Amino acid sequence: MSGTDESAGSGLPEATILRNQLARSSVTAESIAHSALDRIRLRDPLIQAWRHLAPVDVLEAARQLDRAVRRGLLHGIPIGIKDNILTRDMPTRYGSAAYEDFSPGLDAACVRLLREAGALILGKTHTVEFASTGLPPPTRNPANSSHTPGGSSSGSAAAVADGHVPLALGTQTGGSIIRPASFCGVWAVKPSWNLVSLEGVKPFAPSLDTLGWFGRSADYLLVLYETLVPDFVQAPTPDLKGARIGICRTPLWPLASACVAGALARTEALLVQAGASVSDINLPSDFANLSAAHLAIMRSEGRTAFLADLRLSPDQLSPGIRRYAEADWIQGSAEVLKAHDLAARCRAGFDDIAARFDVILTPSSTGEAPMGLSATGDLAFNGLWTLLQVPCVNIPGHAGKSGLPVGITATGPRRSDAVTLAMAKAVGALFHT
Amino acid sequence: MSGTDESAGSGLPEATILRNQLARSSVTAESIAHSALDRIRLRDPLIQAWRHLAPVDVLEAARQLDRAVRRGLLHGIPIGIKDNILTRDMPTRYGSAAYEDFSPGLDAACVRLLREAGALILGKTHTVEFASTGLPPPTRNPANSSHTPGGSSSGSAAAVADGHVPLALGTQTGGSIIRPASFCGVWAVKPSWNLVSLEGVKPFAPSLDTLGWFGRSADYLLVLYETLVPDFVQAPTPDLKGARIGICRTPLWPLASACVAGALARTEALLVQAGASVSDINLPSDFANLSAAHLAIMRSEGRTAFLADLRLSPDQLSPGIRRYAEADWIQGSAEVLKAHDLAARCRAGFDDIAARFDVILTPSSTGEAPMGLSATGDLAFNGLWTLLQVPCVNIPGHAGKSGLPVGITATGPRRSDAVTLAMAKAVGALFHT
Repeated sequence: MSGTDESAGSGLPEATILRNQLARSSVTAESIAHSALDRIRLRDPLIQAWRHLAPVDVLEAARQLDRAVRRGLLHGIPIGIKDNILTRDMPTRYGSAAYEDFSPGLDAACVRLLREAGALILGKTHTVEFASTGLPPPTRNPANSSHTPGGSSSGSAAAVADGHVPLALGTQTGGSIIRPASFCGVWAVKPSWNLVSLEGVKPFAPSLDTLGWFGRSADYLLVLYETLVPDFVQAPTPDLKGARIGICRTPLWPLASACVAGALARTEALLVQAGASVSDINLPSDFANLSAAHLAIMRSEGRTAFLADLRLSPDQLSPGIRRYAEADWIQGSAEVLKAHDLAARCRAGFDDIAARFDVILTPSSTGEAPMGLSATGDLAFNGLWTLLQVPCVNIPGHAGKSGLPVGITATGPRRSDAVTLAMAKAVGALFHT
Repeated sequence: MSGTDESAGSGLPEATILRNQLARSSVTAESIAHSALDRIRLRDPLIQAWRHLAPVDVLEAARQLDRAVRRGLLHGIPIGIKDNILTRDMPTRYGSAAYEDFSPGLDAACVRLLREAGALILGKTHTVEFASTGLPPPTRNPANSSHTPGGSSSGSAAAVADGHVPLALGTQTGGSIIRPASFCGVWAVKPSWNLVSLEGVKPFAPSLDTLGWFGRSADYLLVLYETLVPDFVQAPTPDLKGARIGICRTPLWPLASACVAGALARTEALLVQAGASVSDINLPSDFANLSAAHLAIMRSEGRTAFLADLRLSPDQLSPGIRRYAEADWIQGSAEVLKAHDLAARCRAGFDDIAARFDVILTPSSTGEAPMGLSATGDLAFNGLWTLLQVPCVNIPGHAGKSGLPVGITATGPRRSDAVTLAMAKAVGALFHT
């Protein structure tokens, strides 16, 4: 669990070194588990990242891993699982009072793949109710505990940011991975749509729902790509000198606070200094309708997803979820179909635009994490990328006027995940030199 | 369980009468269960529709329903569940040797909604492995037991066709509902994409996967729409006199056997006789590429869906599934993205075409069910409609030269399910007068 700092001077790419370290670590899973549990014992009474954590079970699972002959790529690495993802040996509560005693003994496909790679499933992290817009969790932002960590993957973002675990799974339908990553100052990725199976993840809006993850570094993000995506091939380390960088402020730019403008300006200056070719991207006019299209699709598909919960346990749903599941604000099929058709046209159009660049940089959030825990922030700068089904990597490294983290997003064409992640890592390295 | 025959002369629409009968039936759930079990005991040693059926448990569940104060819409109606759909009190084996002992104690969302409506979950019906292209099930066609019933929803189609149950759930990713319905001669529907939650259904290709159902009559299909789809509103009974009917032979017409041509010609003649305005629809030329696009998307998404199974239990997968899960025949992301973009353009284009008609009729299969059980038939006439995400209703009522059933499909624009079902019922009534 040493991160990437031991790799200097070896001549191998850092991610390869990390992979080798993980798979051949002589450190026991049990000792790694102890240090994670110690950190959590110290910090989680304040941060409240964890919805379920059973230290005795965790240590027993770690000892079982140490007894196993085969050491997978993630041997003994503790991973947090957002509590909308099924785990066979832990409750899965969806952030909902209706699922207080829900423990169906089934692993989501992603959890099966993590276990197969030797990961230690440490516990379940807090989520907004149904990973949607219902009841917010009690989780606090590690950078300032009177601020929200963002949501809906609140616990996973905070757990990685606060050093509890080096990796945690999240999901994004609007901005549920990239926004909390921006607010907490951690690396995170929302992959291209449908690269990772959602079997065993509670559905919200299938056209948008995407499994992703938070990591201590860009290399940790890469290792989970290799674990969860068929045939994922790492992209070569890029040279920023001569790289074609697009800056996309999006039609939502008026919503960006001064610190976001500052983060992008600082990034642009560093890139120019590094010899990159930086230019602005102005999206075609119909992209301005994508935010409304995203909301129409999310609401429409959310109604389908939450119907059984509405019918079976209406009194245990929060008003936020009930609004999704009930009819009064749904504008009808024709609008939803127009939204799907617009999204499809813009997906193809954005791929064409993005093909002219090595990476595109854009805001991860409207600004710093808001004060208070009653709301998890605005998804404005995330929803359109989720709808476009493109990869998004949050690059941490900036701060706002309150000193809280602010991230920027690296994106690119659909399924350009390998290149986008490699470029994001190279850009992120500029912020720490 | 009297079907619709008692409704004559009451002045109410048949579906309303059926709904009232179901909800207010004085017949006990236990007596209905006994008659279903009797029929199954007699027939299933030959037909083999059921993968799991525990009569003692079924009768106990029926008695529990009879003790319940509230009587839902489907009170006591026995329903078969395709074995790729989770049920909390029965094993779910996915037609796969890898899941022989799989019983995770969790209901799919659709099963929860059925139970809430008072349905009696009778048992699990045989499916092709992973509802995909792997190992075929032992199920036989009730019309001629030396022929396949079609697949992958083989058991559900056969169970309804053979009078075991009036309703059974299936799923379609290629042609897994409509083709077996055609081969077995039963009513069935593949709704518009994402009208029904797939939570708890094993994923295959999320852009295509659709939950649907087989029913004793069009009215039974309607009752499940009302149970499973938010805010579903029955369409008025249409008048065929003056109705605008499109006949779409599709670019795959050379694959249609003579009996399919005959079925469409007979349908056309009956419609003209009923005063309908019938015309041919020639799809634009890019629709000819939809079948290839469907395959590219299904294969690509199938790789993601089956990755955990491939990694964890490769030796328990059949060669057919392994081909999906392994890399050698996948043509790469660019082709898959082009397939998605073509599909999206054709969806909008087909809605425009279909808006000029009250219903569109098209083949349900290339012909009668093939001899033998080693293959479940060709999905040629189903895949393009699944990719277009439009509703498809199989209308039974024709036969081929071997005397086996042949159906035709009613379809229409995306989310025109209510009108398409009402038109299908009206067209189907012509075949029995």
